Amino acid sequence: MPVSGEIFVGGARLTSAERFHAVNPATGKRLEPAFSAAGPDEVQRACSAAWAAFDAYRETSLEARARFLETIAEQIMALGDELIERVIAESGLPRARVEGERARTTGQLRLFAQIVRSGDWIEARIDPALPDRAPQPRPDLRLRHIPLGPVAVFGASNFPLAFSTAGGDTASALAAGCPVVVKGHPAHPGAGELVAQAILAAAAAQGMPDGVFSFLPGPSNELGAALVGDPRIKAVGFTGSRRGGLALCDLAARRPEPIPVFAEMSSINPVYLLPGALADRAEALGVAFVASLVQGAGQFCTNPGLVIALEGPDLDRFVAAAGAALADSSPAVMLTPGIHGAYAAGLAALGAHAAVETVAAAAARAGCNLGHAALFSTTAEAFLADGALAAENFGASSLLVRCPDVAALRRVSEALEGQLTATLHLAAADHEAARALLPILERKAGRILVNGWPTGVEVSHAMVHGGPFPATSDSRSTSVGGLAIRRFLRPVCYQDLPDDLLPEALKTANPLGLRRLVNGRPVQV
Amino acid sequence: MPVSGEIFVGGARLTSAERFHAVNPATGKRLEPAFSAAGPDEVQRACSAAWAAFDAYRETSLEARARFLETIAEQIMALGDELIERVIAESGLPRARVEGERARTTGQLRLFAQIVRSGDWIEARIDPALPDRAPQPRPDLRLRHIPLGPVAVFGASNFPLAFSTAGGDTASALAAGCPVVVKGHPAHPGAGELVAQAILAAAAAQGMPDGVFSFLPGPSNELGAALVGDPRIKAVGFTGSRRGGLALCDLAARRPEPIPVFAEMSSINPVYLLPGALADRAEALGVAFVASLVQGAGQFCTNPGLVIALEGPDLDRFVAAAGAALADSSPAVMLTPGIHGAYAAGLAALGAHAAVETVAAAAARAGCNLGHAALFSTTAEAFLADGALAAENFGASSLLVRCPDVAALRRVSEALEGQLTATLHLAAADHEAARALLPILERKAGRILVNGWPTGVEVSHAMVHGGPFPATSDSRSTSVGGLAIRRFLRPVCYQDLPDDLLPEALKTANPLGLRRLVNGRPVQV
Repeated sequence: MPVSGEIFVGGARLTSAERFHAVNPATGKRLEPAFSAAGPDEVQRACSAAWAAFDAYRETSLEARARFLETIAEQIMALGDELIERVIAESGLPRARVEGERARTTGQLRLFAQIVRSGDWIEARIDPALPDRAPQPRPDLRLRHIPLGPVAVFGASNFPLAFSTAGGDTASALAAGCPVVVKGHPAHPGAGELVAQAILAAAAAQGMPDGVFSFLPGPSNELGAALVGDPRIKAVGFTGSRRGGLALCDLAARRPEPIPVFAEMSSINPVYLLPGALADRAEALGVAFVASLVQGAGQFCTNPGLVIALEGPDLDRFVAAAGAALADSSPAVMLTPGIHGAYAAGLAALGAHAAVETVAAAAARAGCNLGHAALFSTTAEAFLADGALAAENFGASSLLVRCPDVAALRRVSEALEGQLTATLHLAAADHEAARALLPILERKAGRILVNGWPTGVEVSHAMVHGGPFPATSDSRSTSVGGLAIRRFLRPVCYQDLPDDLLPEALKTANPLGLRRLVNGRPVQV
Repeated sequence: MPVSGEIFVGGARLTSAERFHAVNPATGKRLEPAFSAAGPDEVQRACSAAWAAFDAYRETSLEARARFLETIAEQIMALGDELIERVIAESGLPRARVEGERARTTGQLRLFAQIVRSGDWIEARIDPALPDRAPQPRPDLRLRHIPLGPVAVFGASNFPLAFSTAGGDTASALAAGCPVVVKGHPAHPGAGELVAQAILAAAAAQGMPDGVFSFLPGPSNELGAALVGDPRIKAVGFTGSRRGGLALCDLAARRPEPIPVFAEMSSINPVYLLPGALADRAEALGVAFVASLVQGAGQFCTNPGLVIALEGPDLDRFVAAAGAALADSSPAVMLTPGIHGAYAAGLAALGAHAAVETVAAAAARAGCNLGHAALFSTTAEAFLADGALAAENFGASSLLVRCPDVAALRRVSEALEGQLTATLHLAAADHEAARALLPILERKAGRILVNGWPTGVEVSHAMVHGGPFPATSDSRSTSVGGLAIRRFLRPVCYQDLPDDLLPEALKTANPLGLRRLVNGRPVQV
């Protein structure tokens, strides 16, 4: 399946007069072919097709929908090395990472297939009629969850597979029963198109209704705005910058019918080095910290951009070890010239900040879009005085906040905005201190780690990749893991419906074999 | 406990210089005492107290929190007739209705106590570590839900007990572990204060942290705006007008940290009379329809404000019967002069509409704030041509849309905005037609009824009192029933925490005896 540069509206392939190219960030050269940029007409067509598909798609059987997701995974694998090489060319990411990301993407699709089959996400509830209740009888009440409607997905630049065309948002929306319209990320249109082809091949093979998936590549903000503004779109999934996410939230809130936006935006992922841990293993922590920091050129939502610790000789040992590891680190190609430019500007601003010291930086090396890792240091007082120091600098940059005492450490913690993660490095002697910090961290973050590193997000049932604003626009959600399906569902209650009019999930005989709540108690099947 | 007219910030009672009075809508006379109107200072104090209480309150034991809710119910009953009479005086509602509403309110608190005890709302999930997994080990991942933080509750005028100070929003927020700050509705400040006293007595008796509940009465929009704007408020519950709800949504979205608003706003609750049902029992349906329409002077969110049916002699029989019942109906005191005025203006506008016929109205009777029920009729064509005809007129007013054929009936249905309910009256011969309508109704409404009336909302596990915009601001939620607790919760994941640092809900030994998902499968206890 060669990359065609076309727009995919359901099964139809379209072209447009406006063209754009992907750029190889490692060379700065543009990549062939030219891509048709989707515009308002294609948005209309894709949303119309998605809407037409919705009622049929949402009532596909659990098995059919699960097979569709699994077939997408198979079709992605069938793309073979062409996909891997295209991702490498468009992203500058190394092969091992891209292959790992592909495995994560297909694993995620298979996890959602398993979740769809279980039917647990329907959360069927039955409160049987109480005809003899006084003073009034109770009607028969049955609840199931149904999908919201067509979902617009905006992929992320930093995960061209796992958070993009067939990434977590698409997988969970399709699992919920929502048709998906992807706004293709302009940094990896070829990878996007190949994956779109895989999804559409799977849809055709599994007999899914035309319009269940469309792919609209394009570089303009207007394309995204048109998509979010279309009345047939009922929810939005987004992973990207704070500015981009907030713009979509604003557009969605101003619609005649506002819709939810699940935007995963900005996080600096504080890492706490507690005294016992530093005393035990300051040098090892410094080395491991840098390994997490520079992974993927630091281009992770969960990159450890902030380190918080008490001043003292143990912290100095950590800094020395981290500094040495950083100085040894290799600069890496960043995803796009824009991301590289913003990162370099962020480094320059931190380096020039009166209250910030540059602790260490990767040795300068010339090359296209190379990101150089850096570690900065400041005081708790300075950090609290300037909110700009808590802004995310997307890339391998981190800021150490040196706290004179535990009170300052608490103040710094309470001043943080919402985060995807918070990490505690601790030894047995630190448990009391950790216990005192945990209530703060729970209020601030979606995931709390002990003695690990925030990069690397497991895809499983208990994962939360979310958190209070601005980590996400809706802290009640996660964009990774089984619970992500819930974003795209709403409850509907059926009162006194004759059994033959009830959906399968709620019929008295329980033909789907679902686990259901009856009078609030789970009934095993 | 006499009504004092004070402001309640946690356990403290405050007064302010600005005063206001409740008005008895049945007499137009003002009621004593004067109430202190809360302002920005009291908002500050209440939010500060709520914030201070949050970390302690959210970790109260399930049993303690359940007892707190049950004690609120007991304390409300202990208010005795003083509460009933105050509600009657402030609302114009008849005694039987007020007593029934009190039972609903205490029953709701008891339902949430039972839900809190079950711990199911925590939705604990455990994905145990897989240390030997290749290529990378899996960490230990555990998920629980925690409360969002202090919640601002705006009570409704039409349910001074069940949707107000200790109503569904307060009960579900307290159940979730969120402190609550109620903006007292100015139409029933005395009832609000008495219930606030009951909540605070229960909090004291059960040793809840000071600040877990505050009551801020006041007539101004500025009070509500200050409350929603306070950075310590993390979610809002609201029941009221579309304009009011949208204003709160807008305020919440513009905060530096946006927060969710669960606003239940506007619904006209379409009732479909299918041909078989009309042929069977047109007259009985007409009489029963009017009984539902005039109940509580039509001041229900679920009032049947729209009737949709195919033209023909059977529909004429329905209209004749409904018209006769309506002409016989007694006008009833409405809740406030403002509501009465808006209702009368709505009636006048419909009566003057060129495409609307007045079918029947209650015989005019003079009296303070009396609402006269009315039934209007229009064509499908006219209804589709003028969106204003689909606007809610809060009170006992309903519009019949006569459809020439099934295609017109479908077009009318698709043109509807989101609704709390949709009702089908059908006979056996109508099942095919109903089956074709159900997908539309599911997309439009939170609850679908067959052969019943939408007024009367059961409080149980399977209830949904919600629906797509503008029925609510968040179709993924319900404000009535067990699932309402979920609005105020967010998931947090714990990665590789030592057992002694894990919350009780997630410890390996399962000391709370919770039903938990392990590797995605429910583990019974």
